[in-house]
Amino acid sequence: MREHSFILKGNICYSETKNHLSVTEQGYLVCCEGISRGVYPVIPDEYRNLPVKDYGDRLIIPGMTDLHIHAPQYPFRGIGMDLELLEWLNTHTFPEESRYSDLEYAEKAYRIFVEDLKKSGSTRAVIFGTIHLPATEFLMKQLDASGLSTYVGKVNMDQNCTDALRETDALESLESTAAWLRETSGKYSNARPILTPRFAPTCSEPLLEGLGKLQKEYGLPVQSHLSENLSEIQWVQELFPWSACYGNVYEHYGLFGKEAKTVMAHCVHSSDLEVELMKNNGVYVAHCPQSNTNLSSGIAPIRRYLDAGIPVGLGTDIAGGTNMSMFRCMADAVGVSKLYWRLIDQEKKPLTMEEAFYLATRGGGSFFGKVGSFENGYELDALVLDDSGIRTAKELNTKERLERYIYLAEEGGRLAGKYVNGREILLS
Amino acid sequence: MREHSFILKGNICYSETKNHLSVTEQGYLVCCEGISRGVYPVIPDEYRNLPVKDYGDRLIIPGMTDLHIHAPQYPFRGIGMDLELLEWLNTHTFPEESRYSDLEYAEKAYRIFVEDLKKSGSTRAVIFGTIHLPATEFLMKQLDASGLSTYVGKVNMDQNCTDALRETDALESLESTAAWLRETSGKYSNARPILTPRFAPTCSEPLLEGLGKLQKEYGLPVQSHLSENLSEIQWVQELFPWSACYGNVYEHYGLFGKEAKTVMAHCVHSSDLEVELMKNNGVYVAHCPQSNTNLSSGIAPIRRYLDAGIPVGLGTDIAGGTNMSMFRCMADAVGVSKLYWRLIDQEKKPLTMEEAFYLATRGGGSFFGKVGSFENGYELDALVLDDSGIRTAKELNTKERLERYIYLAEEGGRLAGKYVNGREILLS
Repeated sequence: MREHSFILKGNICYSETKNHLSVTEQGYLVCCEGISRGVYPVIPDEYRNLPVKDYGDRLIIPGMTDLHIHAPQYPFRGIGMDLELLEWLNTHTFPEESRYSDLEYAEKAYRIFVEDLKKSGSTRAVIFGTIHLPATEFLMKQLDASGLSTYVGKVNMDQNCTDALRETDALESLESTAAWLRETSGKYSNARPILTPRFAPTCSEPLLEGLGKLQKEYGLPVQSHLSENLSEIQWVQELFPWSACYGNVYEHYGLFGKEAKTVMAHCVHSSDLEVELMKNNGVYVAHCPQSNTNLSSGIAPIRRYLDAGIPVGLGTDIAGGTNMSMFRCMADAVGVSKLYWRLIDQEKKPLTMEEAFYLATRGGGSFFGKVGSFENGYELDALVLDDSGIRTAKELNTKERLERYIYLAEEGGRLAGKYVNGREILLS
Repeated sequence: MREHSFILKGNICYSETKNHLSVTEQGYLVCCEGISRGVYPVIPDEYRNLPVKDYGDRLIIPGMTDLHIHAPQYPFRGIGMDLELLEWLNTHTFPEESRYSDLEYAEKAYRIFVEDLKKSGSTRAVIFGTIHLPATEFLMKQLDASGLSTYVGKVNMDQNCTDALRETDALESLESTAAWLRETSGKYSNARPILTPRFAPTCSEPLLEGLGKLQKEYGLPVQSHLSENLSEIQWVQELFPWSACYGNVYEHYGLFGKEAKTVMAHCVHSSDLEVELMKNNGVYVAHCPQSNTNLSSGIAPIRRYLDAGIPVGLGTDIAGGTNMSMFRCMADAVGVSKLYWRLIDQEKKPLTMEEAFYLATRGGGSFFGKVGSFENGYELDALVLDDSGIRTAKELNTKERLERYIYLAEEGGRLAGKYVNGREILLS
């Protein structure tokens, strides 16, 4: 794979730790066969014969991971934002997702979604589809062709939702999921399947039990939702009266981190017991600040999760979130953490810019393995940022330019290059 | 002024009331000599001879008013967002504003500011300058030439700030302000002066007293800051121990609504007494949601102000706020109001999209007179929105397109036309 060996030159930034940003001005990022071999102020002798792509004064950062996004909800992002979660699902989400039984509509919608995701700052994403097989397979095929690296889930739901979106029963849901796994496992190198029970309320116990078995059979990762909204939590308690907490429902069926690498979106109102469970099981939190604001859910206690050593990444949660930009997601994560500090608990220091950057790159990236850094041995995902359209009279250093880009990406920023696994993604 | 008489055709939206959006698809907006004569489904006979500019399927909305923005802070927006107000002022703001004693720097910085404001969705703005006369006059000249309609303030501050930014004493501050007023009052038709004590802590009592006199002499409006941050409020109480509340300091010197049309930025932590004073005096609140989040100030109780009948508009508060987009400002106003409801007071319903739109157009516009609506008799400020770059597979109605544009203006939206007082602003 000689063509995936090269050197990128520019102002290179990546997280060494949560609190420390490595900055190398006019540095060299070495990529050998898709893997980073580190960042250097001068090219080491052993790499002297690699081709150098010089990005001049631009910034080069690791690619970002969107740890929670609903592809079928992309068409209605930014609409109907005046409802809370459960009402919003019934009024907007379920009717829209029902349309994906129509493959023609699904193809039209997913083409736009994948093209826009490709142009975004996300190099990796963990994605919800719908219950529909043909639509979900089309989504995976398009994503695979995009060159982005993704996990994609065919959704399971066999109760408590609109008829048009409910699978007949657990058996049908499980058979359909097994068929999907036979069809897609190993078929695409970039788009891999992930088990996706929508959320506890829409999954019967037999379905959850069957999914636990499928998980073992295929060794799959798992994604779902957890403790997003107060009414939702109460509902889960009513539906699963034996459960010690919401997360315990997933845990009971082997879908909560221990057996399977698991990411749970939101975790806004997790109880102490649930936090302990997440910590012990190494469950990932996909923090979706914009969505939690839009749906009036609240603010997730991310400082608490970081202090507990729980793995955390960021998610846009389209269409609970309206913006597909991970830059915006970082800015929102910092913003809501400040309001958390001001309004809820002054023991919980707000996130710094360095921490938000860590979450968007290394934090979420680690769900994919060694991803989200430029350290030696990491899969090379990179973004080249052109901030010349964000004008200022002031002289800025590289770190200031990066911070400003995070806040102002959509007001004059431009992605000038994007690499996934050492492969360049064509942006135009 | 025949050239300012015309008809715009498109999908026209404006606020009839706080809760009702008027939508006329493929309607005609009639402008006679800069004044709106209303929106019609077909052109009334009396206007048949006016030229029609057909904007096809695009949206046409009233221009927006940015009720609080600091022009000299534009160069460092998006940088150093990890501090609270008072520390942020000393670390970032005051040193940067000191640079405007250098007219060369000021010209470079203000040119960029005015060009970007011109390209934004703001047709009106109420703007802070610095203490510096030549810089502030240059800013006014540039703004006037832009065609935007603005109030601009030379800042007063004679205590409690870095030496480089402190006027020698009250006398010097007042003489300099009087000189500025003699120089600029009536000189520019689009850029008008507004009295601008920075905030109570940086103004001595003799200065405030003198400003009250200047206000009467020139009949000027007033802008300042109020109850943004808890430490700030405590400091004001220490500096002005006789005051019943922060707002009472301005009121005592005739700078709080009764004698002068007044806008106060923030009002995040106003006491009951202060709210009563604002209400009785008709003081405008410039609600700056992004800034209040960035500086960890909190969330202003806008529902309370609306219920009390206090006039409210929106401000970007560059550089406490990072984005100059009033679309973003609307989305943020809705977002933080949801967190206010969730985290502080569930009696205070979140702002709706219609209400945020009202605040950005009519609410803030009324500070300029009959501005912010297309009703008969309003000064005609209009924006033409091209949302074709925000792609979707879904069919949307006009109201949905507008809501989506508010949330996604920076992700594919494009301003296709801008009018102030019936004059077209050239955007490229």
